Order: sequence, then C-alpha cells, then structure tokens
Amino acid sequence: MTPSTALAPQAFLDACAAAIGAQHVLTDAHDTAPYLADWRKRYQGTACAVLCPASAEEVTAIVKLAHEHRVALVPQGGNTGLAGGATPDASGREAVLSLRRLNRVREIDAHNNTITVEAGVILAEVQARAAEAGRLFPLSLAAEGSCTIGGNLSTNAGGTGVLRYGNARELCLGLEVVTPQGELWDGLRGLRKDNTGYDLRDLFIGAEGTLGIITAAVMKLHPQPAARITALAGLASAHAALDFLALAQRFAGPLLTGFELMSDFCMQLVGRHFPQLRYPFQQRHAQVVLLELSDNESEEHGRVLFERLMEAALEEGFVEDAVVAESLAQSQAFWNIREHIPLAQAQEGLNVKHDIGVPISRIGDFIEETDAGIARAVPGARMVTFGHLGDGNLHYNVQAPEGGDPQRFLAENEKTLNTIVYDSVERHRGTISAEHGLGQLKVDESAHYKSEVELALMRAVKNALDPLNLMNPGKVIR
Amino acid sequence: MTPSTALAPQAFLDACAAAIGAQHVLTDAHDTAPYLADWRKRYQGTACAVLCPASAEEVTAIVKLAHEHRVALVPQGGNTGLAGGATPDASGREAVLSLRRLNRVREIDAHNNTITVEAGVILAEVQARAAEAGRLFPLSLAAEGSCTIGGNLSTNAGGTGVLRYGNARELCLGLEVVTPQGELWDGLRGLRKDNTGYDLRDLFIGAEGTLGIITAAVMKLHPQPAARITALAGLASAHAALDFLALAQRFAGPLLTGFELMSDFCMQLVGRHFPQLRYPFQQRHAQVVLLELSDNESEEHGRVLFERLMEAALEEGFVEDAVVAESLAQSQAFWNIREHIPLAQAQEGLNVKHDIGVPISRIGDFIEETDAGIARAVPGARMVTFGHLGDGNLHYNVQAPEGGDPQRFLAENEKTLNTIVYDSVERHRGTISAEHGLGQLKVDESAHYKSEVELALMRAVKNALDPLNLMNPGKVIR
Repeated sequence: MTPSTALAPQAFLDACAAAIGAQHVLTDAHDTAPYLADWRKRYQGTACAVLCPASAEEVTAIVKLAHEHRVALVPQGGNTGLAGGATPDASGREAVLSLRRLNRVREIDAHNNTITVEAGVILAEVQARAAEAGRLFPLSLAAEGSCTIGGNLSTNAGGTGVLRYGNARELCLGLEVVTPQGELWDGLRGLRKDNTGYDLRDLFIGAEGTLGIITAAVMKLHPQPAARITALAGLASAHAALDFLALAQRFAGPLLTGFELMSDFCMQLVGRHFPQLRYPFQQRHAQVVLLELSDNESEEHGRVLFERLMEAALEEGFVEDAVVAESLAQSQAFWNIREHIPLAQAQEGLNVKHDIGVPISRIGDFIEETDAGIARAVPGARMVTFGHLGDGNLHYNVQAPEGGDPQRFLAENEKTLNTIVYDSVERHRGTISAEHGLGQLKVDESAHYKSEVELALMRAVKNALDPLNLMNPGKVIR
Repeated sequence: MTPSTALAPQAFLDACAAAIGAQHVLTDAHDTAPYLADWRKRYQGTACAVLCPASAEEVTAIVKLAHEHRVALVPQGGNTGLAGGATPDASGREAVLSLRRLNRVREIDAHNNTITVEAGVILAEVQARAAEAGRLFPLSLAAEGSCTIGGNLSTNAGGTGVLRYGNARELCLGLEVVTPQGELWDGLRGLRKDNTGYDLRDLFIGAEGTLGIITAAVMKLHPQPAARITALAGLASAHAALDFLALAQRFAGPLLTGFELMSDFCMQLVGRHFPQLRYPFQQRHAQVVLLELSDNESEEHGRVLFERLMEAALEEGFVEDAVVAESLAQSQAFWNIREHIPLAQAQEGLNVKHDIGVPISRIGDFIEETDAGIARAVPGARMVTFGHLGDGNLHYNVQAPEGGDPQRFLAENEKTLNTIVYDSVERHRGTISAEHGLGQLKVDESAHYKSEVELALMRAVKNALDPLNLMNPGKVIR
C-alpha cells in the first residue's frame, strides 16, 4: 500500500495552525530535528511538519485535516522505540504527530485499581502517581524516564515485570482513540469484564499507530508489595534453568515477578567494562539467573521462601550455587549486573541485536542449535545471550570476534546472522520481535515469516480501518 | 446486514456429506433437535442441517462450501451459552456447525505451561489434563462439565477465577481459526510475548463466531496451589466491601483468587429452599462476602494469613463478623451457599436476570441507586444481588414481589427493569454483559448503548473479514 500523495502541504499546515496554534506546528529544521531520527539513530526521516496538539479534540481536528488533505501522519510519543516505528519516511510529505502535550493524569480510582492517563504521560510519572495512591503500576523498562504510555501501548511494551503482570496489553482496560477518519472513540472503560462485542482495544494496542491514534488509556494498578527480594543462581545450562523455573513457580506462584537469564559471557563482559560491579559467585557458571520475588507479607517472609527454594534447587541439582540478597543495596547490585549487560555490550563495540521469543520449553534447544549454526557460519562470533527467560524472551545478540572490526563485522554478517536466528526462531515456533515491535525495522522480515493467511487478515483489518493508508504508512504491514 | 439467501441447500448438503461423511450431516429432526434450542430454552431455531466435522481441515472444507453456496453457519460447542449465540434463526436456511468432534488434546507442554486443545474439548477435561501434568487450568464455571473450550473462547468466558487469572482471553496464547473464506489461520503460538502485528487472536476471542471459527487454541497453565482456603465475612453494606477488598488485596496480593458478594436476601433465599445448607453466622448481615485464597506454601500458611486479614478488617470496622473454613468440607459448604443462589432463585420462580459490570469503585453506588429506581418503578420487586465483586461483575437479578405471579411479573416488567438497570449501568460507565456475551439476546440493546463510532468500527471489522455475512449472522452486531 502506497500512501496517497499530499495535495497541498501548505494549506494543510495553515489549517493545522488555525486548529492548534501556529506555535505548535513546527517546521523549522532546528525544532523538528529531535522528532525525525529514532533513538538508536538507525533511521533519519523528514517531515512537512511536527504537529503538537494538546488534547484529544485537537488530535481529531488534525486527523480530519490530514484526511482531507491526504497527509500521512506518524504518531510519536517519547521517541524511544527500537524499531523505527515513530520515524517518518524520507519523502518529506508525512507529518509527525507528537502526543507529548497530551500529558494529563485524568483520574486515579484507588478502589477500582485504575489510573486514567493521556497518551503523552511519561511512564515514570504513571508509576509515581500510582505509588502516591498506595498502588503499584508494574510496567517498567529502561526508557521509563522518557517513554510515554501511548508509545508503550502502541508497541505493547514488555520490560521486567511481564512474568507476573503481563505486557502493556494486559495492563490496559480501556482506550480513547482517534480513528483514521478523525472520529473520537471513547472506549475508556475501567472494567475487568466486558463481553459486548469485538475487542477493539487490543486491536489498537500493538498496532504502532497504523490503525488510529491512542489519546488516553485506563491502566490497571496493583497492590504494592510489602517487599521485593532478589536472588542470583549459578547454573550449568539453560536447560537446567527450565527445571529451576518450574520449581520456582511451584514454590512462589504469582509472587515470582522476575526470572532473568544471563550467560557467562554476559557476566564476563560486565566484569571487563564495569569492574566495580562485583561478580557474586566463587566460581564461574555457564548461566546465571536473577530472580525477583514480590512479597505481600514481609521481607523476612520473602527471604525465607527464597532460601527454601534455593535449598531445594541445590538438592535437585538444578542450580550449582545461589545467593539471596540480604539488603536493598545488594538487590540493587544484582539488578545492576543485569542492567549493565547492554551497556557493556555497547562498550565492547557494535553488535547485531535480536529480540526473539520462543516457547519457554524450547529456550535450551533454541540456544544450542542457534549458537551452533552461528559458530559454523561466522566462526569466532561471540554470543551475548540474556533476557526474560520467564517470558521466553531473549535478547540474543551477536558480538564480533575478539579483536575483530565491529563495523566490518556488521556490514558483512548482519543479514546472514538475522537469517540464521530467524530461521531457527521459526523452527521453534517463536517470534522475531517479542517486545520491540516491527516498526520499519522488521516489517519485511515479518512479511517473510508470516503466513499468507495471516498477512491477508492483517491487510483486511488495515484496509477496513484506514483505507487511505494515512496512519503511519509503511510500518507493521505493507 | 442480511445474510445472502441460500441458493441450493440440497447441493450444499450433498457436498458436505462428501466432505465429512453423510453420517455427520444431521438433518433428521430427532437428531438435530438438541442443537436448535439454547440451554435456557429462550430461543428455538431451525437449520438446514447440523454439520459435525472432526478436524480443522474438515471445517475448512465446510466453510468453503458454505461460502460457495452462500449458506450461513452457526458454530456451536457445548450449547451452554446464556445469550442464544449458538442458536440458529428460524429461517431454516442456516446450518449449525458443531465443533464437538474436534475433541483432541493435541499437546501439553509443562515447561511452557501450555496445553494445546481443539475447540470441542470439554472444559472439565482441560482442567483434568492440566492436573495430570501437575498444573492448574484455572478457568472454572458452572457449565464446565459440558461447555467446550471453543465456546469459552468465543464468548470470552469468565467464572470464579477471574480476579486472579483473568477471563478466557487472558488464558489464551494462540489460536487456530478457519476464516470466513475457509482458509486455515495457524496462530497456535505458545508465546508470552509476540509483537509482530495486529492482535488477531483477541479479535476472534469474544467474537461469538461472527468473524471466523476457532478450531484449536494454546491455553496457559499455572502452577497448582498447595492449598485453597475459603472464608466468609458479614458486612454492613456493599460500600464496606470495597474497603474490605482493598485490604484483602493488600494482605494477600495475587493469592486472593475469589471475592464474591451475596446480599442478605440471597442468603435468605438459599435458606428457604435449601435448609440443609447452614447459615454460617450468628446474626444477619446486609452483605456476605466469600473469599478464596490460593496459597503456594501450605494450608496452614493460608489460614494464618486469612485470620490476620479478618482481625484487621474487624478492627477497621470493614466487616461485622468472619469465619475461616477449617476444613475442605467447610470450604465446600461455603461455596455451596454461593452456588445455590441461582438454584434457589429458580425455585422461587421466574426472574429477570442481568449480568452487569461496573468499575469496582462504583458497585456500592450502583446497587443503591438502581435498587431505589426499581423500588420506585416496580414496588415490591425483590433484588437478588450477588456475583464477582472482585471483578466488578454482578448478577443483578430481580424477583417478583412476594406472593406475586412470576409469569405476569416478567411479562409486565421485564422491559422496564432492563431499561432501569442498563441506564444505570451506562451512567456508571459499565457494561450490560460482563461475562455472558451478546449473542442474539442483547444485540439490539448493545447497539442502543454503544456509540456510533464504536458500532462503525465493529461493522468495519465484520465487513472486512466476513463481507458476505455468513458467519453467525445476527449475533453480536447487525
């Protein structure tokens, strides 16, 4: 699908200025620059303008004008996406629609455990406002200080709490959306149950702005846990981690909120580039697992539970060594190791990143088989394997051979590596994008791996809702 | 939308017989009768045949034939729906497509916590197979001995475990669906995270067979709890129940798996018609709450937790009295009271039923205001109010005045009562069908209360996927 050609950009911009104020229609290159490249600087677009409405009503006005003038719109929140989904193309005919000024928390309803927020509210602010009301908003990810809830929903963001609380999708009860025709759909329901028709909410979530523009949402809150306890375990293999996960879930049930895998090479990389982060074990282990437990009773209760779990896991031979954090500081130190892996990787040099998911039971086989395939095709390539094992989601990244030139490595091997990894994902019935979305980065690869039936269903939905293809064209589906 | 007229029913039936075997094309009135009326006997339809394929491939063959011959299909599972969604119309031109012979459990993957089942597998069998694998499949509802997982998904069934585990939607990871054109979509993914395009899965879930036919699903399993503990509490009002719920969630977090409200009149009705079920308190209370906790540690741990909760709730004045079950038998006795309310109601005579949902925080106001409205309009009407308070979902039923004629009461007041209840639901931003779906029962009322924008979006999706309107026409959306 090709977007229709813009007829009269200046007339469109004038009408936008009349609708939302000229100072909110950015066209000066200095003003627009931050909106035209993605966070990782992989994509650089241009735009006829960056439009900054302040309310859902102003968004409807702009979408109606865009419809009338046949101008394609690229919605953008905090611009922290990892797949180029919020970056316009190079034509200069698209307009970026920034939702950042829709930044009001409309309501907190503690008894309903909900918060109603506009699309441009920063994730960290949602967390903070929930905490003020004595509640937990559990969505948490690296970009939380600058990403927006609208972007989180449009990409169905994941993060570190998915094991217990689900993705952004599972945390959303209702949406307000401006349709591609500029109508406002008020689906802002704060209901746990509602069986009155098609699930439009989940259709807009994860659609990356290609079916309409999310302007507000009702998000679920949870009770605040009394304590969070963290532990590390050293294991002989990823296969052992599967047995360990099952055991941990039997012991802790829904209290288990994190189960992160880190390969020994990840630990070595962190040690090399951040020597101040102490390696927590006496000996090296093929895999390290970070566990987090959110306890409703007390820190003491959680720690005892973890200690009993570790004893059982040692006895069963699932783990080789384990340490339960004895203080908040030590918990933070454990998380620091996990969070410094991507930073250590960046220090080590450019690399090929994959955000894959497979059924949890396949994780061990997937790593073994894919590691072997890569070793055959690109001898010396170093695997930086870590991620949310409890969700079946790995950041399965590939670093240039020791001492090699990362630039050249990338240029020569990126395509080969992607093919090896994604073919393996397909064999294991997995996904080539577990939490980052497709954006423009993976739209063609997705089309390659999806069935014709699925692509046809997606296109039918897209055509039905956005027949002029003016909503973020070229993203998710072509 | 009107379904296209069938061109040649006999040619269609002959072709179906060739595709799935003549013995699986039922046309004899004696054979078809059980499929043509709904469980509550509110609807009686007719059909040119009842088709009983045994595999997804046979379903694709039938749907292709139906498409070619322009025959509308009414998918049906266990035929236990409460909204007439699986009953054909009176024209005799529709065919019922029974999924009951698609009854294989295809796979259990304990490490992935998933079970892959065909649409016709009975819910109780899914539970049993999960238990055999040491796992819990938490979907549970009154009809579990005869309803099928395909029907559960098509209606997004709720039940007694929603507070902790969610509706059928939240328990499903992937689907296999035959599209209205007779293509097989293999979306049978067992992934916790997959951000590669539109959420087709959730579009088919809850669509009541109007967008395609679910033939199989990957369902989530959970660890089996070590113990389930039940308690009852007597309260002064539904408002107090909100504070009590918040306290219980703070104490128990995700371990709280049930929070059911029963008004004093419900308790009286049960006492009147089932005197063998002992009333558990010394005194009467305006509301009684049944709580269930699923503990991962032990029965002892759960009971102590509940006892501490009840102490705190008594101290805060949220509850007037409380009793924690001391044995499995006593737990079952508590649940028996809850489960006998609909039976006691039936004994008392015909009544007007509502399956409504409102934001949990509005429950108290909703009951007060709606009770008052009904008392004004229909003096003497008796309110049978009970349900899943933790989900904001009430079975808000109305019984004829004491000694009145229920038949006449229904004939004279059903419409008035529905209007009072649903108008109140709308004021509180609730739903007129929290867990039963729309079917044919509420399709017009839903159209009345939904916005034009939402109806247009639903119609756009329906037209895009099923342009000939051959998939369960007249249900969900017209």
